[in-house]
Amino acid sequence: MSEKLLNDRLLRALRRQPVDVTPVWIMRQAGRYLPEYRATRQRAGDFMTLCKTPELACEVTLQPLQRFDLDAAILFSDILTIPDAMGLGLSVVENKGPRFARPLRSANDIRKLAVPDVEAGLGYVLDAVRLIKRELHGKVPLIGFAGSPWTIATYMIEGASSKNFSLAKGMLYGQPDRMHQLLDILSRSITDYLNGQIAAGVDVVMIFDSWGGILSHAAYLEFSLEYMRRIVRDIRTAGRGSEAPIILFTKGGGLWIDDLAGSGCDAVGLDWTMDIESARSIAGDRVALQGNLDTAVLYSSPATIRRHVAEVLAGFGKGDGHVFNLGHGIHPDIDPDKVAVLVDAVHELSRPYHK
Amino acid sequence: MSEKLLNDRLLRALRRQPVDVTPVWIMRQAGRYLPEYRATRQRAGDFMTLCKTPELACEVTLQPLQRFDLDAAILFSDILTIPDAMGLGLSVVENKGPRFARPLRSANDIRKLAVPDVEAGLGYVLDAVRLIKRELHGKVPLIGFAGSPWTIATYMIEGASSKNFSLAKGMLYGQPDRMHQLLDILSRSITDYLNGQIAAGVDVVMIFDSWGGILSHAAYLEFSLEYMRRIVRDIRTAGRGSEAPIILFTKGGGLWIDDLAGSGCDAVGLDWTMDIESARSIAGDRVALQGNLDTAVLYSSPATIRRHVAEVLAGFGKGDGHVFNLGHGIHPDIDPDKVAVLVDAVHELSRPYHK
Repeated sequence: MSEKLLNDRLLRALRRQPVDVTPVWIMRQAGRYLPEYRATRQRAGDFMTLCKTPELACEVTLQPLQRFDLDAAILFSDILTIPDAMGLGLSVVENKGPRFARPLRSANDIRKLAVPDVEAGLGYVLDAVRLIKRELHGKVPLIGFAGSPWTIATYMIEGASSKNFSLAKGMLYGQPDRMHQLLDILSRSITDYLNGQIAAGVDVVMIFDSWGGILSHAAYLEFSLEYMRRIVRDIRTAGRGSEAPIILFTKGGGLWIDDLAGSGCDAVGLDWTMDIESARSIAGDRVALQGNLDTAVLYSSPATIRRHVAEVLAGFGKGDGHVFNLGHGIHPDIDPDKVAVLVDAVHELSRPYHK
Repeated sequence: MSEKLLNDRLLRALRRQPVDVTPVWIMRQAGRYLPEYRATRQRAGDFMTLCKTPELACEVTLQPLQRFDLDAAILFSDILTIPDAMGLGLSVVENKGPRFARPLRSANDIRKLAVPDVEAGLGYVLDAVRLIKRELHGKVPLIGFAGSPWTIATYMIEGASSKNFSLAKGMLYGQPDRMHQLLDILSRSITDYLNGQIAAGVDVVMIFDSWGGILSHAAYLEFSLEYMRRIVRDIRTAGRGSEAPIILFTKGGGLWIDDLAGSGCDAVGLDWTMDIESARSIAGDRVALQGNLDTAVLYSSPATIRRHVAEVLAGFGKGDGHVFNLGHGIHPDIDPDKVAVLVDAVHELSRPYHK
């Protein structure tokens, strides 16, 4: 569907093709820092109703585009929709994070898992994608997403957010075969899910590996990156999927840029701990890079924000293949006006890098 | 005092001198995973009483040495004793972490801070050091420690543990001069404090930069490493301090090993996200390395623990300058018997690397 887009900067940058200015979007751009989001969420009653009602998910997806000159929309959803569809019973409590009513507690719990039928179990996500695409009228591309197998597995095993990941890592080291069994079914589920999103209309997909960064290098390669690599491969071989650029983002994965860049994906997301200049020199021309301003810069003045935007742009330097973003999701207590400063600064200050 | 030590493996390894086997100690080795620690803590009533009563601090410091063949003791204390001595009112609530009754809320709060007199304000720590040294009878070296300026500053500003560090990073980007003022007074306080610990008898000092890893590279260099570098320099020039090896540990600092290795310290602590083999190739012969087994390996069987110990030892390889440790502190739910497996495996399996 990219041929119909009025603004295809994101797709061009992800393919390392020339653009007029660096495209920019913000992780969690549809979120709690926006008063209109908070109003919709209050109307929805709770987070999962917001996710599961396509009209509401569409509404909040489009909200930041009405305020800011963003180069992409990102589907409003959650990384834990798949285990919810597998029957684990997801709820998301404000300020407490996600909880599963039925976390995985035994080998038998894992054996009983099945790859969800996307239309039957996750049709509300596909409906939201179709509705958002219609409402976007080709203004900007729509990004779909999923959690990484390892990241989703940690929540399924821990039952909630965790500090030490004792249960998940306990399984990784103690029962690695069981962990591989879980990661295998998750990676097949995620492949189906992302292919479903692509078929429904998303232009780009991103895999959020929020907890890959808690692993050792060896464990990361075996238990996280390997399964993301399989998803990338299997999306590539699935018809239209071969067209949609794929972004991999391992939070805290700065040490493993070389591995990520060799995974077959189109772009690697960077948090702010990794110099984008160093990342580019490691990644070479294998992938585009997405990132990586420290979210906390948005607490400061417009002049300071512009200066730090300029530093990230200078870090990447001239040439194609940069998508500007924060290094993590935006915080709920950021003033939305600061996002406008950021977005406009990226467009204005990046022009000289694209002559 | 090192000449009187019966076991000086730690000091020799930190100075990259030959040893018979690789020395090993465990971050938080005196802690909640030990039933005898929990008993002493219950007797103390609360955490700060445990810290502030030299007899109790000594008791828990020595407990792990009675169980395991460890090559060092580490002073039982807290990284937030300095701001407590500055008047911020520290309490530590079980499972909730530290809290300050009077966090820094204004420029004036920072202006009013003074470098604490170590004997007057932190004498209980020095008393604990003297008592522990006496009770150790030279069995192993005693490690003293402090938090890094940046890490202590985050707690003083946030008032507690934080998820996003909005206030601390907001100051870093928005009022960098104010942040530098705070970091300056903290680094002078830490220098005095560590010099006091050294004068009281500790053989080694370690600086825990628990939150350096949340920064961008540029911010890390300016707001964290620079102040640790000053502390190292000022300890070196302070009489006996010049003899005590200094270990710097930035959790999540794997990307910045080269900077850490050039800071003037004797050893760099590694968490488990960084390959120790890669770290050694970057650090060269500038520093010793300490680390870096994933704590979660201790949830698995003795055979699995031995295999992962062997991998870390092989990663560092032959030669001098390795101190074995976990990559973070041990978790409260680890079986103490697994620590015995770890310690014995390090001694047994490292022998061939020291021929």
